[in-house]
Amino acid sequence: MSSKNLIHFGPFEVTDQVFYNTPLCYALVNIKPILPGHVLVIPHRPAKRLTDLKPDEVTDLFTTVQKVQRMLAREYFGGGSTVGKVEDGSFNITVQDGKWAGQTVAHLHCHIIPRTKDSTEGDEIYDRLQTEEGNVGGGLWDRSRPVQEGIFPRIEDEHRKPRSPEEMRKEADFFREQMALVDKEV
Amino acid sequence: MSSKNLIHFGPFEVTDQVFYNTPLCYALVNIKPILPGHVLVIPHRPAKRLTDLKPDEVTDLFTTVQKVQRMLAREYFGGGSTVGKVEDGSFNITVQDGKWAGQTVAHLHCHIIPRTKDSTEGDEIYDRLQTEEGNVGGGLWDRSRPVQEGIFPRIEDEHRKPRSPEEMRKEADFFREQMALVDKEV
Repeated sequence: MSSKNLIHFGPFEVTDQVFYNTPLCYALVNIKPILPGHVLVIPHRPAKRLTDLKPDEVTDLFTTVQKVQRMLAREYFGGGSTVGKVEDGSFNITVQDGKWAGQTVAHLHCHIIPRTKDSTEGDEIYDRLQTEEGNVGGGLWDRSRPVQEGIFPRIEDEHRKPRSPEEMRKEADFFREQMALVDKEV
Repeated sequence: MSSKNLIHFGPFEVTDQVFYNTPLCYALVNIKPILPGHVLVIPHRPAKRLTDLKPDEVTDLFTTVQKVQRMLAREYFGGGSTVGKVEDGSFNITVQDGKWAGQTVAHLHCHIIPRTKDSTEGDEIYDRLQTEEGNVGGGLWDRSRPVQEGIFPRIEDEHRKPRSPEEMRKEADFFREQMALVDKEV
């Protein structure tokens, strides 16, 4: 996306993670997804809180959430050669609106987390969203954190390792192609 | 609200719990709030899933969420004679979109849960939303459940007792007055 303007999520430059872009918002793959397909939809304007959005921004944000759901359903609710439909699975759609609700980047973002019969995490899902594992801001911040080499990794640190820029770019490229298919359907 | 049409949430008649009404959606107090001020915003049309909503319904639903947030902030984020503002507290805004995401009434509803520095429930909040305590459908269903009298109540049953229609009606009346103040401000 070298010809485009850089896209920011709070203080973080996330251009290569973005897979969908509208005049008012964008969707990006997550640095530390809680489950496969866990993505975020974010207004371009760095509004902090949901109540900061104007009606056209509200419409654009949540109709984009709907489109992203259709795209994720194709990928995660299908099987083999079958393209999945929204009704074949479920989603947790959630805004942590303010720091006491778990918001870690002061730039409004809506989480979309695909769920299926087989996603046995059950009640844990929201827990994980409000602990270090769902700390989107912390994950992005860690990208620039100095790395100490030659140390035997602790298991829990390994477990929590954010995904590489390369891995996220590949996923974003794939989701971008899929969104084009969804846009054709609507 | 005797002069109005009855309002339904899935199979349940909830007219007296409703404190705000628009052409396309309504807001109601909860039978089993997880925290004080935990309310729901629901489209009048019994759409099951977020992707079922048309753009005008999306706009109406989430701009109503914003208004309800402003009302709840007045009440829960203020203190003494101070009227609270949205930025004085936080909210969990969440849609459990489909049964594998915890939806128990097959009629789309958006949870709004006020959070403050003092709401120490922390990570538990989402847990409670996905267990029996947050089972909106179960709570409404239980209203018509046969009551066995003369039995010594088990503590956990007592703890989980849904609020009385009278209690909810009083809260809805109060919230309705407050919403009128919010509508004047906007």
